[in-house]
Amino acid sequence: MKYYHPDDSLMLHTDLYQINMAKTYWEDGIHNRKAVFDLYFRKLPFKNGYAIFAGLERAIHYLNELRFTESDIRYLKEMEYDDGFIDYLANLRFSGTVRAMHEGEIVFNNEPIMQIEAPLAEAQLVETALLNIVNYQTLIATKASRIREVVGEGAALEFGTRRAQEMDAALWGTRAAYIGGFDATSNVRAGKLFGMPVSGTHAHSFVQAYRDDYTAFRKYAESHRDCVFLVDTYDTLRSGVPAAIQVAKEMGDQINFIGIRIDSGDMAFLSKEARKMLDEAGFPNAKIVASSDLDEYTIFHLKAQGAKIDSWGVGTKLITAYDQPALGAVYKIVAIEDEHGQWQDTIKISGNAEKVTTPGRKKVYRIINRLNHKSEGDYITLWDEDPQSEEKLKMFHPVHTFISKYVTNFEAKNLLQDIFVDGKLVYEIPELDEIKAYAQKNLDILWDEYRRILNPEEYPVDLSQKCWDNKMRNIEEVKKKTDALREKPGF
Amino acid sequence: MKYYHPDDSLMLHTDLYQINMAKTYWEDGIHNRKAVFDLYFRKLPFKNGYAIFAGLERAIHYLNELRFTESDIRYLKEMEYDDGFIDYLANLRFSGTVRAMHEGEIVFNNEPIMQIEAPLAEAQLVETALLNIVNYQTLIATKASRIREVVGEGAALEFGTRRAQEMDAALWGTRAAYIGGFDATSNVRAGKLFGMPVSGTHAHSFVQAYRDDYTAFRKYAESHRDCVFLVDTYDTLRSGVPAAIQVAKEMGDQINFIGIRIDSGDMAFLSKEARKMLDEAGFPNAKIVASSDLDEYTIFHLKAQGAKIDSWGVGTKLITAYDQPALGAVYKIVAIEDEHGQWQDTIKISGNAEKVTTPGRKKVYRIINRLNHKSEGDYITLWDEDPQSEEKLKMFHPVHTFISKYVTNFEAKNLLQDIFVDGKLVYEIPELDEIKAYAQKNLDILWDEYRRILNPEEYPVDLSQKCWDNKMRNIEEVKKKTDALREKPGF
Repeated sequence: MKYYHPDDSLMLHTDLYQINMAKTYWEDGIHNRKAVFDLYFRKLPFKNGYAIFAGLERAIHYLNELRFTESDIRYLKEMEYDDGFIDYLANLRFSGTVRAMHEGEIVFNNEPIMQIEAPLAEAQLVETALLNIVNYQTLIATKASRIREVVGEGAALEFGTRRAQEMDAALWGTRAAYIGGFDATSNVRAGKLFGMPVSGTHAHSFVQAYRDDYTAFRKYAESHRDCVFLVDTYDTLRSGVPAAIQVAKEMGDQINFIGIRIDSGDMAFLSKEARKMLDEAGFPNAKIVASSDLDEYTIFHLKAQGAKIDSWGVGTKLITAYDQPALGAVYKIVAIEDEHGQWQDTIKISGNAEKVTTPGRKKVYRIINRLNHKSEGDYITLWDEDPQSEEKLKMFHPVHTFISKYVTNFEAKNLLQDIFVDGKLVYEIPELDEIKAYAQKNLDILWDEYRRILNPEEYPVDLSQKCWDNKMRNIEEVKKKTDALREKPGF
Repeated sequence: MKYYHPDDSLMLHTDLYQINMAKTYWEDGIHNRKAVFDLYFRKLPFKNGYAIFAGLERAIHYLNELRFTESDIRYLKEMEYDDGFIDYLANLRFSGTVRAMHEGEIVFNNEPIMQIEAPLAEAQLVETALLNIVNYQTLIATKASRIREVVGEGAALEFGTRRAQEMDAALWGTRAAYIGGFDATSNVRAGKLFGMPVSGTHAHSFVQAYRDDYTAFRKYAESHRDCVFLVDTYDTLRSGVPAAIQVAKEMGDQINFIGIRIDSGDMAFLSKEARKMLDEAGFPNAKIVASSDLDEYTIFHLKAQGAKIDSWGVGTKLITAYDQPALGAVYKIVAIEDEHGQWQDTIKISGNAEKVTTPGRKKVYRIINRLNHKSEGDYITLWDEDPQSEEKLKMFHPVHTFISKYVTNFEAKNLLQDIFVDGKLVYEIPELDEIKAYAQKNLDILWDEYRRILNPEEYPVDLSQKCWDNKMRNIEEVKKKTDALREKPGF
């Protein structure tokens, strides 16, 4: 098969401009100057009140194994890059420092969730893949969390592989959904690779192959202990549910009759009728699984109508984040060393105030009230500030700065942890179930106002006074420079 | 790294229920009965008038390399499947026959674009991955084709990797975009693997690293022959464009000044102003590239306003198919051999008429008018029909059957080609550029009415009389059976 290189790597999973910029930096001798890039998103997805950070483990693997393989180098030679530059690339390993939030952390807009402090060219080369990973996985973990909030005590099952945007999305998406609160996946490979619980019994085609519900269910029951029968191939209430009951009675203790699945028709009506039939037949513990184009809104309304559904199989709407299929996280340079090794701030100006970057090396703290253990908001400082040393912290709105509050008796939790230090992995990757538990537990520090799926309250993500002043100073400097261009001859 | 199995395969990239169904088939001894599954979608995406089939090459690789590896088998043993069944799986290779449309083919709703005729258990095991591949790639090729229709003579560049839904989507999505009519990608790995043209120069961070536009552009020009300068880091018209012109003048023939890129602000206004500045400075051939959240609608309206944009960089909206991120193709059993080796039709009934399947082994013909070389519509027949043998073909609407037309002097082109026959790959995979050219050329057989991006005319996809009668007969049979259940005791 022509394009399957046995040594294919993710090193070239980047935009061409990253390589072209690296070339200039290398020729100009500034490729090893350290730079700091913040990875963050500007808007919470789905108008949700929070997001759940996912993708860190994949990002760590990516950075840890980063190198140009022989076939990568061969391709760059075909593109006619100079030998000197190619030699530099061939020997390149990621040697930077990476800080990131805990995978599964509750995160917000306009705060760095990862921070890459690395030689300029390296930091640039890894931008595309890091964004690709974090954008998608964070999006899906967040969508899953919204659905989980609505499902409540029921089971939430991820069934979307066939509708995912290619294979990595199915695989990493279902892992992210698990972090966000789902209980199991239908994807067997995800079970193998991540140790996630896997779920699924049979499809309509199975009933069609046996030509009627009863025969199909009976055959399934004769070859499996755990049985969930799909009852809507021909006629849910007239054929499917009665056949399921019949087989459950016939097989008795030989099977574990978990319940039935309904995949079409009106879920509120059908589930209520099916519930009655199951109860009357003596199967009050049999569960009803629903799976038909579900999302948090449909589930919310089905529950409001008293649908008797115990488990929710969610496919397309979750795995593609159907109502907002991209997160839009960005990766912005905020500081760079000058020729003397001194940090210099950088800023990107835009007509749109939200797109102006926040310059400087920064830290992100979560300010937790010691009395009620709820979060007062997140607090972004310059590198050398320590909010914990203050008795009374002033927090003010990052846009409407006249809105402010004072916080006392708080714990300032530093959210960005060291993952790599000078290229060395110093972080022990938690088990997936730990990550999932972390995400669930952490939601408790949010007031319910932030967790509502519709029109939640806006969570405060504030800049410290110093960080704010520094940003204003940087904006002012650029303005002066740009204004000066008007007078410059030749321009 | 714990979950990276060196022998990881795509065999388990399937839903668990496929394996559980296979288990029943195997225990019941019907796993090798041949079955036919049609892969098709019910609705055209984006309300477009057509779709472009993509994903075949990836599907071929998948099927050709399909086997359970040691780590796959180890995992299934952990799941406690019986040894006998596991032995069967361990020796399984895909032994079926696959027919498919040409990759890049113009395709429509409710016609099989792939047809799998294989031992029942095998056909079932490959369902999930085939849908996963075809759903996404066809979606993106179609979206790209819509954008291409609007872009017209300009260049269309795929820049979406960072916003794609994980890595496979970036990679296979950009290949699909190329098939749909895009000219180049920013993804270097796609260039390496697929031989696609790759494009890109520098980002905002590059200008920030050098602190001003002029220095950055000059440094870039000193290390690259082909130059496109990104002009909107600080102030597009006051700083960016003048600096680009300055550097272009200074460098003269030492560089190939391709043009400038604008990534924010009002594209209509900025491009017109920039065009004037470039023209006045003596660079009438310098191109203007736009890249800011573009899709077919924004491009259409920018062009309508006389924006002076030559090349369009499209990211998020294309690579995620933002306005409809899933195609929803399905894979339905339409026939199965009985114990005597005779084909029996199968059907799935639904309250929703569009979800009722069309039973039987079928062929799909495109009916091309010999006089004007335009297509009259697609025509689905039962396996043994030959529309070419008829002088006058009656085509009728598949829902509103009273709407019909007669076609004469036509060529009936059989669209489903043999890809695998009894497990053997018999198809020579075309080069990517051939696939792309095929897609472009084939669009010409569609009347313009079907190519309009807003409210196109509905293209006819009709059933032959025999195929229609057969469907009605099958529906009738199921109805009789279901009605009979009402009287049956015990139900």
